[in-house]
Amino acid sequence: MNFELSILGCGSAKPSKRHQPSSQILNVRGKYFLIDCGEGAQTQMQMMGLSMMNIGHIFVSHNHGDHVFGLPGLIGTMDLLGRTAELHIHGPQQVGELLDFLIRTYYADIMYKVIFHPVDERLHTLVYEDRSITVHSIPLQHRVPSVGYLFREKPRLPHIRREMIDAFQIPFSQINNIKAGASWTTADGTVIPHERLTTPVAPPRSFAYCSDTVYLPDLKEILQGVTLLYHEATYMHERALRAEQTQHTTAVQAATLARDAHVERLCIGHFSAAIKDEAALLREAQDIFPNTILAKEGLVINI
Amino acid sequence: MNFELSILGCGSAKPSKRHQPSSQILNVRGKYFLIDCGEGAQTQMQMMGLSMMNIGHIFVSHNHGDHVFGLPGLIGTMDLLGRTAELHIHGPQQVGELLDFLIRTYYADIMYKVIFHPVDERLHTLVYEDRSITVHSIPLQHRVPSVGYLFREKPRLPHIRREMIDAFQIPFSQINNIKAGASWTTADGTVIPHERLTTPVAPPRSFAYCSDTVYLPDLKEILQGVTLLYHEATYMHERALRAEQTQHTTAVQAATLARDAHVERLCIGHFSAAIKDEAALLREAQDIFPNTILAKEGLVINI
Repeated sequence: MNFELSILGCGSAKPSKRHQPSSQILNVRGKYFLIDCGEGAQTQMQMMGLSMMNIGHIFVSHNHGDHVFGLPGLIGTMDLLGRTAELHIHGPQQVGELLDFLIRTYYADIMYKVIFHPVDERLHTLVYEDRSITVHSIPLQHRVPSVGYLFREKPRLPHIRREMIDAFQIPFSQINNIKAGASWTTADGTVIPHERLTTPVAPPRSFAYCSDTVYLPDLKEILQGVTLLYHEATYMHERALRAEQTQHTTAVQAATLARDAHVERLCIGHFSAAIKDEAALLREAQDIFPNTILAKEGLVINI
Repeated sequence: MNFELSILGCGSAKPSKRHQPSSQILNVRGKYFLIDCGEGAQTQMQMMGLSMMNIGHIFVSHNHGDHVFGLPGLIGTMDLLGRTAELHIHGPQQVGELLDFLIRTYYADIMYKVIFHPVDERLHTLVYEDRSITVHSIPLQHRVPSVGYLFREKPRLPHIRREMIDAFQIPFSQINNIKAGASWTTADGTVIPHERLTTPVAPPRSFAYCSDTVYLPDLKEILQGVTLLYHEATYMHERALRAEQTQHTTAVQAATLARDAHVERLCIGHFSAAIKDEAALLREAQDIFPNTILAKEGLVINI
């Protein structure tokens, strides 16, 4: 089952030749969740062969240009491509003002509905749910209201071992009970435990997106054990003061949080355009949390 | 002297892998005039090594996304790069509403002034002038108010032939008069005609930008004899009806206008994403006006 992250852009506000502004797509079993939408996100999707028509929900962290200026074009392109399905956009209230302006000024006549869902950036709460995942907000702290998102697969039921079902002649009507955890008692009273009748599925995976934010050590509670954490690491640690002033995080801080939250893997991004050697950033993070990788445009991570 | 056009993007509204949305830079002796600013224009400038800090004036044709959605990011980037010089943006009134929204919402604190100059899209009139050029508006007709721009070099004075000045011992105080057209009378009454004292400069060059617009045959008056005409040619002529419905131009129509206006060269662009073979578009135009070229991202035309 797909649970896959594609990095469209991992630069910060000042453009560089090496990076696009923030944007990524989480592919959950063919449903695309777009997370932030910097200028050029739609071009990046085309380059990576990701159809924007698979996007049903967009999650926006905060209303800074390098995270939202791809929305104006994207909304129009979806209309030109013949979209009729509703588009849901989640984010702090300020993002709604951008959408209001765009709809009023450019898109009064588009053939689909854009529905904005304000997210309270102070709360860790459920903001989206479907059959396969939940999405919770993560309160961040930046120069404007900012929020992260935690995507969690729902636990899936185990697979039925068909040969056991046949061997014990278990009727079809009992399959769902067994999947849900029941054992089976044969005619002679023997109890076949649930575990012999099923094979377990992989444990549910999770992905957390935290950008932009100052270093928040307390996030370790919310992020405990996530499979993949994407965290901004705008600066090297020698610029920790600058990071605090601009409400950003250093690579050392991102790695410390990953370690303290016992996440499985850390991906750092939102690189300052001033950083010429991202390998140094990576070394700094890996000294604290070895299972760290660098984000990069075009990177696809199988979570 | 530079009078050079760089194509940043020549696609139309629906993005394609082959084209960026409309944007180009006219470089007049080191001063950059940005003409339209589709999404991704700043990235294209970086790729082409064109510093956005050389842009003093932006001329916008109309307030459709594929011509303006690069402005939100560009304004912010200029601030991040430390701009303090005023930025002048010219365009139909509606473009001013976008700028108002951006300044109010994202850029209340930037360190330079953005000054909007509304252009009446119904008039052919002077909208900008400096020491070396004039810019006149060109009334276009599209689904929203739309305007083209005609850039004309001012006539330059001829070069003084230094050896003649020395030979006739003409005093320095007379140089400007001679440049301006005066002859010289020697002590013995011999008249040395202006033409012997100077070498002529190249005739003034001109560049016209017409996009987006329905075919307007009457534009041949305004465009008479321009050195380079960039005209939209969104469709092949077999889609002339579609062009009229959407208020666009076919390649045949653009070439007909170029021929009737006796322009020196035609560059066609604003290609529909549906066109897979632009060579066919070019052939169609060249049948009518042979001196036609196709726009292309990265193309630099020495006018």
